[in-house]
Amino acid sequence: MTTTRKLKLGAMIHGVGSSMSAWRHPEIPSDASISIHFYREQAKKAEEGKFDLLFIADGLFINEKSIPHFLNRFEPVTILSALGIGTSNIGVVGTLSTSYSEPYTVARQFASIDHITGGRAGWNVVTSPLEGSALNYSRKEHPAHSVRYEIAEEYLDVVKGLWDSWEDDAFVRNKETGVFFDLTKMHQLNHEGEHFSVQGPLNISRSKQGHPVIFQAGSSDSGRTLAAKTADAVFTNSESIEEAQRFYRDLKSRAVSYGRKPEDILIFPGISPVVGITAEEAERKYQEIADLVRIEDALLYLGRFFDHFDFSVFPLDEPFPDIGETGSNSFRSTTDKIKQRAREQGLSLRQIALQTATPRTGFIGTPQQVADRIEEWFEGEAADGFIIASSVPNSLRDFVDLVVPVLQERGIFRNEYEDDTLRGNLGLSKPENRYTAERNQTNDDQMEPLSKDRTVSAS
Amino acid sequence: MTTTRKLKLGAMIHGVGSSMSAWRHPEIPSDASISIHFYREQAKKAEEGKFDLLFIADGLFINEKSIPHFLNRFEPVTILSALGIGTSNIGVVGTLSTSYSEPYTVARQFASIDHITGGRAGWNVVTSPLEGSALNYSRKEHPAHSVRYEIAEEYLDVVKGLWDSWEDDAFVRNKETGVFFDLTKMHQLNHEGEHFSVQGPLNISRSKQGHPVIFQAGSSDSGRTLAAKTADAVFTNSESIEEAQRFYRDLKSRAVSYGRKPEDILIFPGISPVVGITAEEAERKYQEIADLVRIEDALLYLGRFFDHFDFSVFPLDEPFPDIGETGSNSFRSTTDKIKQRAREQGLSLRQIALQTATPRTGFIGTPQQVADRIEEWFEGEAADGFIIASSVPNSLRDFVDLVVPVLQERGIFRNEYEDDTLRGNLGLSKPENRYTAERNQTNDDQMEPLSKDRTVSAS
Ligand SMILES: Cc1cc2nc3c(=O)[nH]c(=O)nc-3n(C[C@H](O)[C@H](O)[C@H](O)COP(=O)(O)O)c2cc1C
Ligand SMILES: Cc1cc2nc3c(=O)[nH]c(=O)nc-3n(C[C@H](O)[C@H](O)[C@H](O)COP(=O)(O)O)c2cc1C
Repeated sequence: MTTTRKLKLGAMIHGVGSSMSAWRHPEIPSDASISIHFYREQAKKAEEGKFDLLFIADGLFINEKSIPHFLNRFEPVTILSALGIGTSNIGVVGTLSTSYSEPYTVARQFASIDHITGGRAGWNVVTSPLEGSALNYSRKEHPAHSVRYEIAEEYLDVVKGLWDSWEDDAFVRNKETGVFFDLTKMHQLNHEGEHFSVQGPLNISRSKQGHPVIFQAGSSDSGRTLAAKTADAVFTNSESIEEAQRFYRDLKSRAVSYGRKPEDILIFPGISPVVGITAEEAERKYQEIADLVRIEDALLYLGRFFDHFDFSVFPLDEPFPDIGETGSNSFRSTTDKIKQRAREQGLSLRQIALQTATPRTGFIGTPQQVADRIEEWFEGEAADGFIIASSVPNSLRDFVDLVVPVLQERGIFRNEYEDDTLRGNLGLSKPENRYTAERNQTNDDQMEPLSKDRTVSAS
Repeated sequence: MTTTRKLKLGAMIHGVGSSMSAWRHPEIPSDASISIHFYREQAKKAEEGKFDLLFIADGLFINEKSIPHFLNRFEPVTILSALGIGTSNIGVVGTLSTSYSEPYTVARQFASIDHITGGRAGWNVVTSPLEGSALNYSRKEHPAHSVRYEIAEEYLDVVKGLWDSWEDDAFVRNKETGVFFDLTKMHQLNHEGEHFSVQGPLNISRSKQGHPVIFQAGSSDSGRTLAAKTADAVFTNSESIEEAQRFYRDLKSRAVSYGRKPEDILIFPGISPVVGITAEEAERKYQEIADLVRIEDALLYLGRFFDHFDFSVFPLDEPFPDIGETGSNSFRSTTDKIKQRAREQGLSLRQIALQTATPRTGFIGTPQQVADRIEEWFEGEAADGFIIASSVPNSLRDFVDLVVPVLQERGIFRNEYEDDTLRGNLGLSKPENRYTAERNQTNDDQMEPLSKDRTVSAS
């Protein structure tokens, strides 16, 4: 497996940097999160670096405590489509919540982006961590963590069903006869479930990928189960190679337990590499950004993972406070990890807040050093690829110009795109239409008895 | 008014032509409704012709009786965004239903497209005519016509409120102080209504147009009222100049009764011009398309306006059947007109079906003749502009190359774009943010008593 296995790379574009205060740096455009120019430049740079995909995060609730680049950013469906024009091989993957949207609309939108881009669309399925989202969507309450995942699973079932509404060759468009489509290849889904009832068919044909690529982000037990059953790829966060390896093994074995192959699901930890010509330069770049973080902002940033919990009432230099179950209906996997780290390493609130605001994932150093870490994680089966987030000025440019060539030389990353679809580049197969599969199955079944009969009569 | 008043033009891009069988014509690409290449070419041609906007229709339900280009087409939000890239002045207007979507998401999407295009987004508000839409959206029933319009009005209130979440200068982004935004210029909407409760703020800043342009399509009494209260422009269908003039006068006077100026709302009838170098050539082009329509397809096309009513059971050459109130919860204004025309002109079912499938709006002839009709409608206050639908091969190309220059020579259509925003080109002002307006108002109010006081004490 390791001889042909190739590293996958995604570029997270999110404007002003993964550090909440990076926008204050003189070399970072402070309006980047809403600049189409910035987004398109990043997209082109990532494609120049032969990245597999662009990745757009999202959220459905803000308030005065939200961090800068969440307050003002593009809506994912619209920016994906825009980034699909002017690029030709890179995938466009965006986040959309199953808790606050309609499967018919979302199935259409991703199918449509897949048509627009000629097979490069991907959807990062999330369930929305913030309670406040309900307030923007006429809901009495934010569904509980477990219910959100229950909804998500049914939702994905519906969406994938709708993507099979039309078999690949349903549109015959015969100008002579006037027959536009083959009625036997159009299918109603007739889904009737706990949370959705959707008749179909979808009003768009099956796209080049069959099904756009499904990413999943959410690492709790329920999140992992959903991913193992339904996702092509998982976006995750790990603080050490050991943690990443545990996650990797767990996810792959869960997938196998659902009858899938380990390579059917790709694991992408998110990292924020900082590259310098020398290790000192890299360290200086990191420190410049870390120094811009005001402690009050770091507390807000930390608080957001706990559903906008107010940490400012606690003493900064005492051990991280015991806040019970706060946040467990929000970014649960993340908050569990923060609490665990504070406990195990005996960290203060200040330390936890600053570390969280300017994460130090360890991918800091010279191009060779960063490539070493990447290779180590990749070969050590801690990752199939990475989502690269920007944290310092020109992060993506430096990564593409300095690290990618090293990875290419080492033979673990592509020199050229293998394909013009995202599935093709990720090495994922195109799902067969369920009705086509059924028909082929039926034909096979019918063929067998027939040939048996003939054998019998011939003997 | 008529000296400075200039004609507005929109290009409806909908793939295989407004005639349902046009895809059978040898010179029409039969996959146009799902070809990004075709859409982008049409967009460029329209921009070359200095059109104000591109227009994308939509629907949320199909079945085996649906006409070809409804079965398989791009989702509006995604195609608008894609068409915004690679164009620079033309507006991108798309249809989205208030009956089956969430205002927070839709407000975001159009604001986002407005940011992506630098101020060229528009939304065609519809309430969805087809009962079957409910089946795709987990709803027990399709809301009644009047309820749909009630929902639409509240929905627009919410969306416009969300678009004012941030005042124009809310994002200060001061790198020195670390202040990203001015808290006093961020506003919660806190809408609590019959159909929606939405807190806000929206997670995207106010876009260049302030509010993307609101189109409305739906010509019943409730539809007109909604337009008069809330819309910047109306997309309509009229079969004669007299009918169009009545509609025009009615809409403008309704707008005035809601405290608006007549020029605050622009009326766009949809037409399908057929241009030939000679009148005979134009006639031949029309006939070629009309001849492609099979009567069974024409019956389906007609039936769709009546919510997929099955007309095939009636005799073709008898008077149009009496079908009671069928269709009145669907495309009501359209079905009323069809019934009326059948009654008044004593037409058979066959005649009505064929006429409906290949509408003959009368804009057929030489470039001069077509320009004459346009000028007549425009100067006669039957229209402020037109939505040009394609009906024969290369319709848009011929219109741009042959008719636009005549309109320009006559001085009723622009030679160059006046602006790079859609509002700017349509001559519509940018709505002031409601909170900025309030503050200015309050400041004025406070100023007055103050200066009065001072006058008092000085006297
Ligand atoms: C690495 C990672 C990235 C995520 N990205 C998003 C995002 O962009 N938008 C979002 O609403 N939620 C995002 N989530 C949140 C999850 O989708 C989920 O709603 C929440 O974390 C609870 O799930 P969990 O406890 O399974 O992690 C992310 C979670 C993880 C772990
Ligand atoms: C000229 C015109 C264009 C329309 N375009 C659309 C459309 O693209 N999508 C849609 O769902 N409804 C469309 N409608 C339907 C209306 O939005 C509305 O749902 C239906 O016609 C009932 O409204 P009415 O009786 O007020 O016309 C259109 C209606 C008219 C008159």
